[in-house]
Amino acid sequence: MYLHRQELQHRAVPDAPDAVYARKLQEVLGGQYGEISVALQYQFQGWNMHMPGKYRDLVFGIGAEEMGHVEMLAVMIAQLLEKSPLGITEEAVQNDPTVAAVIGGTDVQHGIVAGAGARPVDSNGNPWMGSDITSSGNLLADFQANANAEMQGRVQVARLYHMTDDHGVRDLLAFLLARDTMHQNQWLAAAAELQEEGLEQLPVPSNFPLDKEHREVAYQYINFSDGEAAQEGSWASGPTPDGLGEFSYLPEPEPGVPMPPPTHPDARFYGTTEVPNTAEKLAGRAQDAMNME
Amino acid sequence: MYLHRQELQHRAVPDAPDAVYARKLQEVLGGQYGEISVALQYQFQGWNMHMPGKYRDLVFGIGAEEMGHVEMLAVMIAQLLEKSPLGITEEAVQNDPTVAAVIGGTDVQHGIVAGAGARPVDSNGNPWMGSDITSSGNLLADFQANANAEMQGRVQVARLYHMTDDHGVRDLLAFLLARDTMHQNQWLAAAAELQEEGLEQLPVPSNFPLDKEHREVAYQYINFSDGEAAQEGSWASGPTPDGLGEFSYLPEPEPGVPMPPPTHPDARFYGTTEVPNTAEKLAGRAQDAMNME
Amino acid sequence: MYLHRQELQHRAVPDAPDAVYARKLQEVLGGQYGEISVALQYQFQGWNMHMPGKYRDLVFGIGAEEMGHVEMLAVMIAQLLEKSPLGITEEAVQNDPTVAAVIGGTDVQHGIVAGAGARPVDSNGNPWMGSDITSSGNLLADFQANANAEMQGRVQVARLYHMTDDHGVRDLLAFLLARDTMHQNQWLAAAAELQEEGLEQLPVPSNFPLDKEHREVAYQYINFSDGEAAQEGSWASGPTPDGLGEFSYLPEPEPGVPMPPPTHPDARFYGTTEVPNTAEKLAGRAQDAMNME
Amino acid sequence: MYLHRQELQHRAVPDAPDAVYARKLQEVLGGQYGEISVALQYQFQGWNMHMPGKYRDLVFGIGAEEMGHVEMLAVMIAQLLEKSPLGITEEAVQNDPTVAAVIGGTDVQHGIVAGAGARPVDSNGNPWMGSDITSSGNLLADFQANANAEMQGRVQVARLYHMTDDHGVRDLLAFLLARDTMHQNQWLAAAAELQEEGLEQLPVPSNFPLDKEHREVAYQYINFSDGEAAQEGSWASGPTPDGLGEFSYLPEPEPGVPMPPPTHPDARFYGTTEVPNTAEKLAGRAQDAMNME
Amino acid sequence: MYLHRQELQHRAVPDAPDAVYARKLQEVLGGQYGEISVALQYQFQGWNMHMPGKYRDLVFGIGAEEMGHVEMLAVMIAQLLEKSPLGITEEAVQNDPTVAAVIGGTDVQHGIVAGAGARPVDSNGNPWMGSDITSSGNLLADFQANANAEMQGRVQVARLYHMTDDHGVRDLLAFLLARDTMHQNQWLAAAAELQEEGLEQLPVPSNFPLDKEHREVAYQYINFSDGEAAQEGSWASGPTPDGLGEFSYLPEPEPGVPMPPPTHPDARFYGTTEVPNTAEKLAGRAQDAMNME
Amino acid sequence: MYLHRQELQHRAVPDAPDAVYARKLQEVLGGQYGEISVALQYQFQGWNMHMPGKYRDLVFGIGAEEMGHVEMLAVMIAQLLEKSPLGITEEAVQNDPTVAAVIGGTDVQHGIVAGAGARPVDSNGNPWMGSDITSSGNLLADFQANANAEMQGRVQVARLYHMTDDHGVRDLLAFLLARDTMHQNQWLAAAAELQEEGLEQLPVPSNFPLDKEHREVAYQYINFSDGEAAQEGSWASGPTPDGLGEFSYLPEPEPGVPMPPPTHPDARFYGTTEVPNTAEKLAGRAQDAMNME
Repeated sequence: MYLHRQELQHRAVPDAPDAVYARKLQEVLGGQYGEISVALQYQFQGWNMHMPGKYRDLVFGIGAEEMGHVEMLAVMIAQLLEKSPLGITEEAVQNDPTVAAVIGGTDVQHGIVAGAGARPVDSNGNPWMGSDITSSGNLLADFQANANAEMQGRVQVARLYHMTDDHGVRDLLAFLLARDTMHQNQWLAAAAELQEEGLEQLPVPSNFPLDKEHREVAYQYINFSDGEAAQEGSWASGPTPDGLGEFSYLPEPEPGVPMPPPTHPDARFYGTTEVPNTAEKLAGRAQDAMNME
Repeated sequence: MYLHRQELQHRAVPDAPDAVYARKLQEVLGGQYGEISVALQYQFQGWNMHMPGKYRDLVFGIGAEEMGHVEMLAVMIAQLLEKSPLGITEEAVQNDPTVAAVIGGTDVQHGIVAGAGARPVDSNGNPWMGSDITSSGNLLADFQANANAEMQGRVQVARLYHMTDDHGVRDLLAFLLARDTMHQNQWLAAAAELQEEGLEQLPVPSNFPLDKEHREVAYQYINFSDGEAAQEGSWASGPTPDGLGEFSYLPEPEPGVPMPPPTHPDARFYGTTEVPNTAEKLAGRAQDAMNME
Repeated sequence: MYLHRQELQHRAVPDAPDAVYARKLQEVLGGQYGEISVALQYQFQGWNMHMPGKYRDLVFGIGAEEMGHVEMLAVMIAQLLEKSPLGITEEAVQNDPTVAAVIGGTDVQHGIVAGAGARPVDSNGNPWMGSDITSSGNLLADFQANANAEMQGRVQVARLYHMTDDHGVRDLLAFLLARDTMHQNQWLAAAAELQEEGLEQLPVPSNFPLDKEHREVAYQYINFSDGEAAQEGSWASGPTPDGLGEFSYLPEPEPGVPMPPPTHPDARFYGTTEVPNTAEKLAGRAQDAMNME
Repeated sequence: MYLHRQELQHRAVPDAPDAVYARKLQEVLGGQYGEISVALQYQFQGWNMHMPGKYRDLVFGIGAEEMGHVEMLAVMIAQLLEKSPLGITEEAVQNDPTVAAVIGGTDVQHGIVAGAGARPVDSNGNPWMGSDITSSGNLLADFQANANAEMQGRVQVARLYHMTDDHGVRDLLAFLLARDTMHQNQWLAAAAELQEEGLEQLPVPSNFPLDKEHREVAYQYINFSDGEAAQEGSWASGPTPDGLGEFSYLPEPEPGVPMPPPTHPDARFYGTTEVPNTAEKLAGRAQDAMNME
Repeated sequence: MYLHRQELQHRAVPDAPDAVYARKLQEVLGGQYGEISVALQYQFQGWNMHMPGKYRDLVFGIGAEEMGHVEMLAVMIAQLLEKSPLGITEEAVQNDPTVAAVIGGTDVQHGIVAGAGARPVDSNGNPWMGSDITSSGNLLADFQANANAEMQGRVQVARLYHMTDDHGVRDLLAFLLARDTMHQNQWLAAAAELQEEGLEQLPVPSNFPLDKEHREVAYQYINFSDGEAAQEGSWASGPTPDGLGEFSYLPEPEPGVPMPPPTHPDARFYGTTEVPNTAEKLAGRAQDAMNME
Repeated sequence: MYLHRQELQHRAVPDAPDAVYARKLQEVLGGQYGEISVALQYQFQGWNMHMPGKYRDLVFGIGAEEMGHVEMLAVMIAQLLEKSPLGITEEAVQNDPTVAAVIGGTDVQHGIVAGAGARPVDSNGNPWMGSDITSSGNLLADFQANANAEMQGRVQVARLYHMTDDHGVRDLLAFLLARDTMHQNQWLAAAAELQEEGLEQLPVPSNFPLDKEHREVAYQYINFSDGEAAQEGSWASGPTPDGLGEFSYLPEPEPGVPMPPPTHPDARFYGTTEVPNTAEKLAGRAQDAMNME
């Protein structure tokens, strides 16, 4: 159950409207790693979780905060769009290069569709999609996904920080950067705790019986490219992070197995085969061939 | 540059066709975390990388292998579809429940569109999308994304392992499971090496000036849900994984700031405002109001 | 700002798991008119609204409730998936037609991707998309959209009610049906109130100067099909709902205007034109034609 | 059956080409509420309708007109693109800010993909999607959807009217605005007629047995936000539009019910549970555990 | 301008409802190569065409026919859904395997969303997309696209013919097959005529100056795979179809050029470079570095 | 199996960065007819092919080359983005119109998401989709699709050639143009060879029994538009390309058949029918109607 308060976690007021920047800011609202993604990702992880307690509390606790981040960004974007231009004439463009920039740099749907309002889309206007979230039920995998989302998200916010000099916008971004710092740390801590408590181990999923996988290639780095430095890394020799093996290095793949012969599905799929459509075969066109039912 | 060899890294021949399972197997070919995703993800990371050497060799070396995994799965799926049924009659359905299952459980586009062939889609028939990959240029973030992809992928392959008892399919999955084990280990090793070499640190991105973020909330767990166990985890007290702070815990958010006042964009966006459309205003309909140009 | 409570507005516990029904129920969670759509639609309307007060309170008040409906459905779906089958063998299918039904009727990504968990997708597994919401800033239009969403949603829930006889599921649906009844009534009341207060009128948007549209065709029903009953309705004669005109009826369109001549863009777009690629023209291939820069 | 005439319902010739505006105009051709949407929406409603007569004639009569609107807009866009620039050099950009605007403000696929032609996409270049239409079979719901589509569409056309001063474009928009006025009125009239004739009532769907929904919450406004003005509206007290109840107001939700306990699906989904992967459990990796088949 | 007649080009009445087949038939209504695709593809080609006369008449003449094909399929699908099951109980499934098949094999959105009606989606429920059409303005390319669409479409209809034994459905498919035969022939004839009239030639686009392309590799088959039969075809030796060259064959690519050095964009994109985040660098975190604005 | 070499088939180095052009070039990397499309299209055709030998070698041989084209374009785009602007201020925009152009004309996700890197998207930022490829198993249809893809692709590259004067970019495009010339010729040659060898004929699919289609309309051009020139083409009279008939011409369709009566699905779908919701019917709301289970 969610209760909404008509207040914001942090101030979200720009110094001045900037419709071009509003478009850019959409990325961290409605993009692949935007706030809608993390809000729904964490909450779906909560609804799907298979145990009560601290891990479920964690995903709910952060998930609900992210809903408020969605709100702060939407409100900020609406304000950045407040002076969104409308009656643009060619004369205006000729006289003022800024007008030209605004024409080109804005998300035109902000005006035409939303009437100078925020939208659940990314900075190119692609709608947010449910396929942007991850909730597998395996918490070690999912917390890895969460840490990734917070890292990608913080990289994007950092870039956006340099794309404006509006103090109000930067103040909000400075807040979001700090929260991303926190959440990166939290998901990494949670992933570590899962392993310390013996709930999950590497490789994920850890309780799939290892003897059922082809262990002989489980720690072998087979280089399918020709980069010579490939074997210098800690991923090509020495112990593996899962503590169960030793890395080895093959500079190129061993000979493979032949491809299996081509398939021959039902002739009524009309795939091309090596049998010519001979005169007789085509003559078949003229008869009501029972086998073609 | 890519050279193709008409051989496979591992045998990919099922004991028998199984069109229902073919659909399921599409997930790890063309799904969010399927082989097309990792193949293109690693290669785009290589093409976009900002330094030569071992890290770039690594993404190219694994990326090209994943292209071969796409191939093994596509070839396997085509064989699983080889006896794909076509001339289904109601009588057949009445007589044999397996036929019913096959009707319902298959991806009907396998037959209608691909003529009993594999497709670049997931197990629900959603087309693979370019938005499924991650390549930010920040390698610590991206290797985290890669580790996540391999974890999610291995979880899915493990589940698929239990959804068939075909020895040929299981043999291929056992091979893929081992390669996923390897790649999970490699990306974790590479992420660690980046940090050991001082190329990247936590929080990502590490060289954004920390004093520009609101440090006072950078290690504060603010619980926006009401789960009491939320504070028990290592994410609520003690040192943070980035080594730069101490976690603290707030059981609920502090009072926020008021929402900013609503925006008032150009009236010609026709947003609703608190000013009534009075008689005079609507009378404006009858005149060629210049301000409405 | 959103606060989450680990309780539900209404009981959401099925009598028994039913993975096939879980798939169907996804429609009202993540479909075009599902709860994610209305939750985000109302909240975006709130963030974009151009006036404070009762209308904004209304969209926030209902929007937050809908977030809780998303939660109830997700939790319900997870429970319906609890006994989701995994180790399906051909033998099992042969012996039990229900198994066959389950194979075919489930969303296979529920198992493979989400580990028996809910997902932000519709009943065909299409991801929820940001383009499913409407927030134009014009409240009369948007409340019309909201009323439509609640009507479509209640129709879908009513259909789903008849697709199960699980008392737990029906109990939740009976609750959702009642809330949809309420919300239909609320949006219609709010749309009426906007007009009574003179904030908006028909046609939407009401303050676009009417004399700028071609009034001579503003109340004319031109029938582009050949159905003879088309003129019987109240939409073909009598006063118009906006109170500004009289409907008239044309049984077929009047003659139109000729299509404008085809365009002739820059030749370097290589569109086909009526000028043949004569010998001379193709000879141009052999010279470094400056005009082809 | 459709017959095409090579003439237009209204003149569609711009004063001058304007590639930037061409992009904007795509919204009402191929956007969520563009002419492709309404054309296909009304026609699908006709093909799916469950009764003959005036209502079906109505959707066919308007649906076919909308196909002609698609055509007028496509032809207009092609003309607006006629002078679409191609050989843009940096020098040109330096000398003329209009060139800069054109570069940025156009849909580059208009040139690269369509050779200066119209496309079935919105103003951000997102392809039109079948999920943009509504056809539920319940006509009261669907006519509500239609009225909404015409309202959103007219709002967008009105905004686009102010974004150009080309007389030819404005003349076409003035025509479309009038037709949208007509169609808004028609769908509202048709929705009213359905109710007057007793074919449908509120709440939609009206013949779902009301006693099967939880009537005790069917007219209760439960405020999940903290806006104090929420109770002032006609949606919080007084009779309800469906004529079947009285609105009541709750300033906040009553206590809910506890969330159900977490689910425990088959262990082979590898979801994380509270049972540690103890030594014994992980030892299981080394044996060919039958229960892990 | 389009005029609709309430009659069909051909009878479209099934012997009996079949909800499972209705789903399959959606492919040729709303799939990649379904009737919506060809209808809109040909019409967009008409609206964008750069010359009047027979070619434009052709695309309009066939395009409008295809709209009627959309209609016949939609009407057929609605009838196939007429007995679409709703009140499915587990008991029913246990007793009748056909019920099981129906559950699994149907498009559940046909019932839940469309109330037993047709939808603009493919046989997997993916919405039709504007990106499924081709209209480049170059008629030789586009007629090639049209011929391809009719070929793919006829292959799909042929497969669907074998997936039912309903005489009414087969009668409609037999009609559509014949029309596809016609349209294949027409587009091939039109492509030939374009070349005979000298309006277009191979390679497309024919008036791009040939000397501007790297002619030395314009007829060279470079085999990037290791199939030995690759050189046996008429594509590896002899005259080329465009009449301008001779095919030659290279069994493998010649050595390429080195990859260019990695890029070094602005440091504020936070891409990883070979410069370690040394102590000094990270110390930069603590100062308000101007160069990080 | 794929082996990667860290070299390029052709030099891919621009004279200078150009972020605006980088966006445009995305079309031929990740657009509908870009290199990802052809690479995966040809390879899926190979994996799905039903016969060994020269045709399969051909699709593999070209498919692997196209993977290298993806790489050249990605590497080129990364270099074009190398000086991608970041710290844009309003002052800069005011002073330099080029800056304005750059703001508007770039793909902002190149910076925000990819850190000045290439992405698997088209020139409008739409993600590449698996539905962009064609692999039907019928080689005559598929080679037609391939020829079309190379034609559309070469048209796009030719247009892009004129949109830059950077010698490095043009040099790469000149190479790609030549390879497209080659591949157009190859697919046409292969399509011809299939027919010469009697493996496939027109109409596609050639071995569907012709007497099962309605032959009486198989060569009849029925003009559904009113263009008088429609009958002048070789598609309206004379022998048909498939060699099996004679074209005939009908200036307009013959009268059709009546539309079938509307469907009456289960009342619990709540579709609107001609039966009013009379008092008795609505009274049914108050009773627990068994027939509404």
